[in-house]
Amino acid sequence: MTVTYTSDVATCRGFGCFWKLLFRWKGSVYKLVWPELLAYSCIYYVCNMVYRFALNEEQKRFFEKISIYCQYFSDLIPLSFVLGFYVSIVVQRWWDQYLSLPWPDSLALFVSTSIHGLDERSRLMRRTVMRYVNLTEVITFIMISPGVKKRFPTLDHLVEAGIMTSNEQKIFDDLNAKTSHPKYWMPLVWAGSIIARARKEGRIRDDFAVKTMLDEINRFRGLCGGLLSYDWISIPLVYTQVVTLAVYSFFIATIMGRQFLDPAQKISTHEVDFYIPVFTLLQFFFYMGWLKVAESLVNPFGEDDDDFEINWLVDRNLQVSYLIVDEMHSEHPELIQDMYWD
Amino acid sequence: MTVTYTSDVATCRGFGCFWKLLFRWKGSVYKLVWPELLAYSCIYYVCNMVYRFALNEEQKRFFEKISIYCQYFSDLIPLSFVLGFYVSIVVQRWWDQYLSLPWPDSLALFVSTSIHGLDERSRLMRRTVMRYVNLTEVITFIMISPGVKKRFPTLDHLVEAGIMTSNEQKIFDDLNAKTSHPKYWMPLVWAGSIIARARKEGRIRDDFAVKTMLDEINRFRGLCGGLLSYDWISIPLVYTQVVTLAVYSFFIATIMGRQFLDPAQKISTHEVDFYIPVFTLLQFFFYMGWLKVAESLVNPFGEDDDDFEINWLVDRNLQVSYLIVDEMHSEHPELIQDMYWD
Amino acid sequence: MTVTYTSDVATCRGFGCFWKLLFRWKGSVYKLVWPELLAYSCIYYVCNMVYRFALNEEQKRFFEKISIYCQYFSDLIPLSFVLGFYVSIVVQRWWDQYLSLPWPDSLALFVSTSIHGLDERSRLMRRTVMRYVNLTEVITFIMISPGVKKRFPTLDHLVEAGIMTSNEQKIFDDLNAKTSHPKYWMPLVWAGSIIARARKEGRIRDDFAVKTMLDEINRFRGLCGGLLSYDWISIPLVYTQVVTLAVYSFFIATIMGRQFLDPAQKISTHEVDFYIPVFTLLQFFFYMGWLKVAESLVNPFGEDDDDFEINWLVDRNLQVSYLIVDEMHSEHPELIQDMYWD
Amino acid sequence: MTVTYTSDVATCRGFGCFWKLLFRWKGSVYKLVWPELLAYSCIYYVCNMVYRFALNEEQKRFFEKISIYCQYFSDLIPLSFVLGFYVSIVVQRWWDQYLSLPWPDSLALFVSTSIHGLDERSRLMRRTVMRYVNLTEVITFIMISPGVKKRFPTLDHLVEAGIMTSNEQKIFDDLNAKTSHPKYWMPLVWAGSIIARARKEGRIRDDFAVKTMLDEINRFRGLCGGLLSYDWISIPLVYTQVVTLAVYSFFIATIMGRQFLDPAQKISTHEVDFYIPVFTLLQFFFYMGWLKVAESLVNPFGEDDDDFEINWLVDRNLQVSYLIVDEMHSEHPELIQDMYWD
Amino acid sequence: MTVTYTSDVATCRGFGCFWKLLFRWKGSVYKLVWPELLAYSCIYYVCNMVYRFALNEEQKRFFEKISIYCQYFSDLIPLSFVLGFYVSIVVQRWWDQYLSLPWPDSLALFVSTSIHGLDERSRLMRRTVMRYVNLTEVITFIMISPGVKKRFPTLDHLVEAGIMTSNEQKIFDDLNAKTSHPKYWMPLVWAGSIIARARKEGRIRDDFAVKTMLDEINRFRGLCGGLLSYDWISIPLVYTQVVTLAVYSFFIATIMGRQFLDPAQKISTHEVDFYIPVFTLLQFFFYMGWLKVAESLVNPFGEDDDDFEINWLVDRNLQVSYLIVDEMHSEHPELIQDMYWD
Repeated sequence: MTVTYTSDVATCRGFGCFWKLLFRWKGSVYKLVWPELLAYSCIYYVCNMVYRFALNEEQKRFFEKISIYCQYFSDLIPLSFVLGFYVSIVVQRWWDQYLSLPWPDSLALFVSTSIHGLDERSRLMRRTVMRYVNLTEVITFIMISPGVKKRFPTLDHLVEAGIMTSNEQKIFDDLNAKTSHPKYWMPLVWAGSIIARARKEGRIRDDFAVKTMLDEINRFRGLCGGLLSYDWISIPLVYTQVVTLAVYSFFIATIMGRQFLDPAQKISTHEVDFYIPVFTLLQFFFYMGWLKVAESLVNPFGEDDDDFEINWLVDRNLQVSYLIVDEMHSEHPELIQDMYWD
Repeated sequence: MTVTYTSDVATCRGFGCFWKLLFRWKGSVYKLVWPELLAYSCIYYVCNMVYRFALNEEQKRFFEKISIYCQYFSDLIPLSFVLGFYVSIVVQRWWDQYLSLPWPDSLALFVSTSIHGLDERSRLMRRTVMRYVNLTEVITFIMISPGVKKRFPTLDHLVEAGIMTSNEQKIFDDLNAKTSHPKYWMPLVWAGSIIARARKEGRIRDDFAVKTMLDEINRFRGLCGGLLSYDWISIPLVYTQVVTLAVYSFFIATIMGRQFLDPAQKISTHEVDFYIPVFTLLQFFFYMGWLKVAESLVNPFGEDDDDFEINWLVDRNLQVSYLIVDEMHSEHPELIQDMYWD
Repeated sequence: MTVTYTSDVATCRGFGCFWKLLFRWKGSVYKLVWPELLAYSCIYYVCNMVYRFALNEEQKRFFEKISIYCQYFSDLIPLSFVLGFYVSIVVQRWWDQYLSLPWPDSLALFVSTSIHGLDERSRLMRRTVMRYVNLTEVITFIMISPGVKKRFPTLDHLVEAGIMTSNEQKIFDDLNAKTSHPKYWMPLVWAGSIIARARKEGRIRDDFAVKTMLDEINRFRGLCGGLLSYDWISIPLVYTQVVTLAVYSFFIATIMGRQFLDPAQKISTHEVDFYIPVFTLLQFFFYMGWLKVAESLVNPFGEDDDDFEINWLVDRNLQVSYLIVDEMHSEHPELIQDMYWD
Repeated sequence: MTVTYTSDVATCRGFGCFWKLLFRWKGSVYKLVWPELLAYSCIYYVCNMVYRFALNEEQKRFFEKISIYCQYFSDLIPLSFVLGFYVSIVVQRWWDQYLSLPWPDSLALFVSTSIHGLDERSRLMRRTVMRYVNLTEVITFIMISPGVKKRFPTLDHLVEAGIMTSNEQKIFDDLNAKTSHPKYWMPLVWAGSIIARARKEGRIRDDFAVKTMLDEINRFRGLCGGLLSYDWISIPLVYTQVVTLAVYSFFIATIMGRQFLDPAQKISTHEVDFYIPVFTLLQFFFYMGWLKVAESLVNPFGEDDDDFEINWLVDRNLQVSYLIVDEMHSEHPELIQDMYWD
Repeated sequence: MTVTYTSDVATCRGFGCFWKLLFRWKGSVYKLVWPELLAYSCIYYVCNMVYRFALNEEQKRFFEKISIYCQYFSDLIPLSFVLGFYVSIVVQRWWDQYLSLPWPDSLALFVSTSIHGLDERSRLMRRTVMRYVNLTEVITFIMISPGVKKRFPTLDHLVEAGIMTSNEQKIFDDLNAKTSHPKYWMPLVWAGSIIARARKEGRIRDDFAVKTMLDEINRFRGLCGGLLSYDWISIPLVYTQVVTLAVYSFFIATIMGRQFLDPAQKISTHEVDFYIPVFTLLQFFFYMGWLKVAESLVNPFGEDDDDFEINWLVDRNLQVSYLIVDEMHSEHPELIQDMYWD
């Protein structure tokens, strides 16, 4: 459900291209911020009504003093700094997590080129190695993505989907009884064993290919482990709390501090009563939106508009794996002279 | 259409070299900002005229209050911060995308050195491997660059251009019927198969060379996949919207907030009427230009002045590939003693 | 004892997800800041009481002047800047240290696939190589983590835990007499020798596997060395002192500078007496919390709520190592046709 | 002509070491800024003289109003922000370019160790491979560095300098007629062919060495290509213009805004007339110097004091290449027992 | 002489752990800043005394005006920005330099595992390769670290210390006559030749090991070259001067600008005379300390408290090298069943 707008901003002519993005709803700051904005506006206008209609003169003067005091301090909170540094870290992690997504394409290419033989057993080996790689990937995703977890709540669902055999499920269950550590890497060990066997049976012709594939399997394991690390080690709670506290206190302070005070009192910067605090609401959009950037990127495996489409990835990887190692195995179009052949 | 000015700033003498860049038009901030500047100035002067000539005294006083209010709040928007952090991310991604552009030179060198034989079939293999690599590259570019898409709107155009054979086009079409996932990597799988065959036929003499070439093909696939990732996963829309909103609200606020008010009213910092708001326009140039940096870099595969010249790259890579593997194949100038041979 | 909240922030709907984090205690800013907050409040109210009840009029005027002076200067301290830059460095190092944690999984996979033979000696070799790798890891952790040090205060405890044999302990002791440099890498040298022997005895069939395993052992050594580097080379003391001094001076200044002064004196921004300095306390939370982010991340191997669970890691790695090289050695589920086999 | 001061700041005792750097001229901010400073001072004092002596009272009042207006707005330009972010990018690119400089030492070591034989042909091969590598380097530098371009304006000069033979020059000329793309990589293809031939002739004993050398040649090509990329893709012109505009507008504003106004007018912060605007000049030094950092680093291959010494590098690399592969070929001092041999 | 405090900040309980660091002297900001602080205080109090006792009333009024003027401008210097960005770069380089320190452990492991044979010549080869690697390291350090230079002022001292033989010294001297370029890489070329010879004599059994060791030697050379680069290419002098100028001008401005003016004059923020400018001194500590962070990290090979202990490293590396390749050569403890053997 990633929101892609790259093609809309390819070329920047006339009034540029960013203003067009302001009218999008899906994945937009409006969609994320409106509940808070509504709540904020309600509280703001309740205070406003109380000040205008419920208070007597003396209470109004007191209200005005509180308002000025709140305004003074709301300007002391260095929101843009804190948000700037925090969002930098979150955006960095978000992209690093994207780069940690494992793609089986490389391994598929190696398997297709290196495990020779057109008999059933060779074909079985090629397919099974790729299935194991995809299995590891799916097990990893189940641990980190609520969407994939929903799709495959138990191992039975994996068996049903054909990614696991019931035989393998049994081994998993047996091992779960022994140790509680995550066992996402197990299919990769099996894949390694199959490759070792294929070498022994001569289906792989050289040690290079074995090494290349084992290296690739290890890289794959590393990436899955990396994804789990990002899941396990969040940005320290303290930091997130500090930032959230700063934003919320700022807006609580502005509820009082940005009230339009009676112009008759001649308080500086309160000379007109505009009824609608346009700039305060813009600031709300702005700072709260910035916080929402962090909220929606901090875990990109959820179901936000901006999160990665993991379920799509699972299907794509399985399909492409089989395509490369099976249907396209050691085939290539006939060699014919190209156009520029002198 | 990249704007290169590196050679103009090689040496910084006298008054330096950056001021010279101010007089360039192509790729300049002026070229990017002038439509907005024009619109902004128009609206500014319309308000100005209304204030000067259309309003009565009482309305003028009200106008002045709004102006002061707008000025007060326009200073609260931390534009430089938000732009600073956002543009940092955009510039980082822009350069990472440049580094992700795949160049076939390395592979060409390996192919030229490793696939031996001067007969037609060997030559055909060398050329075809390189053609496939270029084909993958072009298919990738078609997906991300409007310019390349315009040049090759369909596979037919690729066939016409000699990058694909009609035979290969048919396979693509067949596969498109089966699955809708991008298939840019398919020619690379074919290239892998050709290399495996060349090894079997003894045209490649050792397993090392096979591994090296497969590794290189994989690196190539990784880079193409990376380019697609940058296309697929934009900077979160929320962030771009927040920044755009901030810049636009700032300038909407300044349209009122930077009006020259009647000096007779003795409002602080409004003691002279200059008619032309020089500094406000400079600020406009400045902040809007900073936003334009982001707009023109956010997708460097478009047709902005500053975007990468992808069509040129396509031609260059095809030409250089054939040059290395075919014309220069296993040739080198005669070995003669150099000047310093004692 | 890492505090994980990633799954709580997977999807950001309604009022978002960060506000929920504000109610956590474990690893929270409240838990870290409350002793300082209490101390700060006490001193603040002592000054407050003195001003209200103990001073005569003239002294009160003097107190007010000091307060205004303190307030003026407390605003000059660029706390958010210094903290922003410093915390960036700390967070960077914290994550780099996480990435430096060595995992034996890759080596285990290689050992399991490459050291063949089902006889006792082969099995012994596989297990011993993995034990040595884990031994190096544990010795490294003992040097940097107080928690692991507490668990294994002497080599005897390692022998007891079965990670070391008494034979090996003797060698360590002998060598300790000769040189005082850390000897964490010694078991890795032994592991290298065992691999060389296994090759000579034909249990490893090709030189590739030897190279791969030696490379992996070296990478492991590099990571352990990296962890020791982070321990040995702290962030320069000067920098930490500067930041700490800045935060503490700021709060010492605010103790006087944020007192509510007698509204009757008509001092600007001191027009109401609120008794509880809400915003000052929020600022305290905020800045002190930011410093605490640094304090708890600067050494992630301690026993803070947010620190890495090293003792868990030691157990996990030992268990998984044996699991891969021993129980799962060269076994894989029977090869059967998957669901999509046409 | 790099300005090295590292050894002067090795140890920081007493009053530290940075103040000593203030008295350097070569590569200093003074040397870079003085022409601008002179121009700025002249204009400043012309305005000053006009105000003091040429204007009548009424004009003086008007001048003062302009001055106050300019001062107000000059404070709105967030110069330190923009410069901070921009210079960060420039410094990053500057160092990345340094790291992209290709050094032939590694290849020389491999060539010396792997191409065996003491006969003339072997020696010729070793020398020629290294000459080609250096040739590629020089051709690359000619494209990016005005200093090297001046030294070798045409290919004839390369032939004269003994880096190219006239035979090779002819091939270059032939190819230039065919295609206009940069051909810096051509000598590397030749080097690859020579290595392939050396293997065939048995002068290289194993395929490993071939692969290692080809990899190294490819890395070399990658670095040269990287240097050309930095030359081809400048920092977007828009960004540079925005920063330059900001700095220049700031100083144009201060020319009026920092005038000493008649103290008799009792304008705030204009209570004394100092004649020399010390702090304004310091600010000039400071901000203009910061911009100069960017100007002198943006292209480090020019002839600024701080630029890399490319011509020195060319000589060094050629000399060291021949030294390693020729004079030191397969020689090493006699093996004798070292001092600590027990 | 690195100042390590990591273990003091492992766990952050009660009032945290950073306040404890404030009481350290070695490597502290106090130790670095006190001479400047003393000088600053002296000048400050001289001005103060002059104002209080030496000036007549009229001169005092003039002094006050200068003071206010200085105070106004001292607030315009964006010190925290400039220092923040500059120190970021310095800290980055400092850590990169640490990571560039070459450790011979990996090579030692490879040499120990790959160069077989228990006869004297094999042993000699193993030891000599490691000695050459250490020799290169020491020669590199001599060029960049004053401490190591002091220890080994000439090659004779290296011969005396047993790191070089007089035979090798002669070759160095001969070559120095021919070319003046640094020759730190020469022992590595010799090491390469010895490895090539060991392969030819059959002491190394496969080409893999040769390649692995040559790669490692090359990596070592790269790191040494990297260290020299950091030494050769300082942070551009302009940048350092700009930062230093900014800090010094700020404090020169505050000497006048932070004087306590006569409260009787009723100048705003000068309502009390405190005699000791507490906050100004804190600011001095703070900003000057920040600059000192840069001063002591800019060259980490000096003899500051925070600099790397290079002489210790030299000893450690030599000792460990011999230990691994000689005493521990191809030995490992007897293989015995571990505790968990089923």
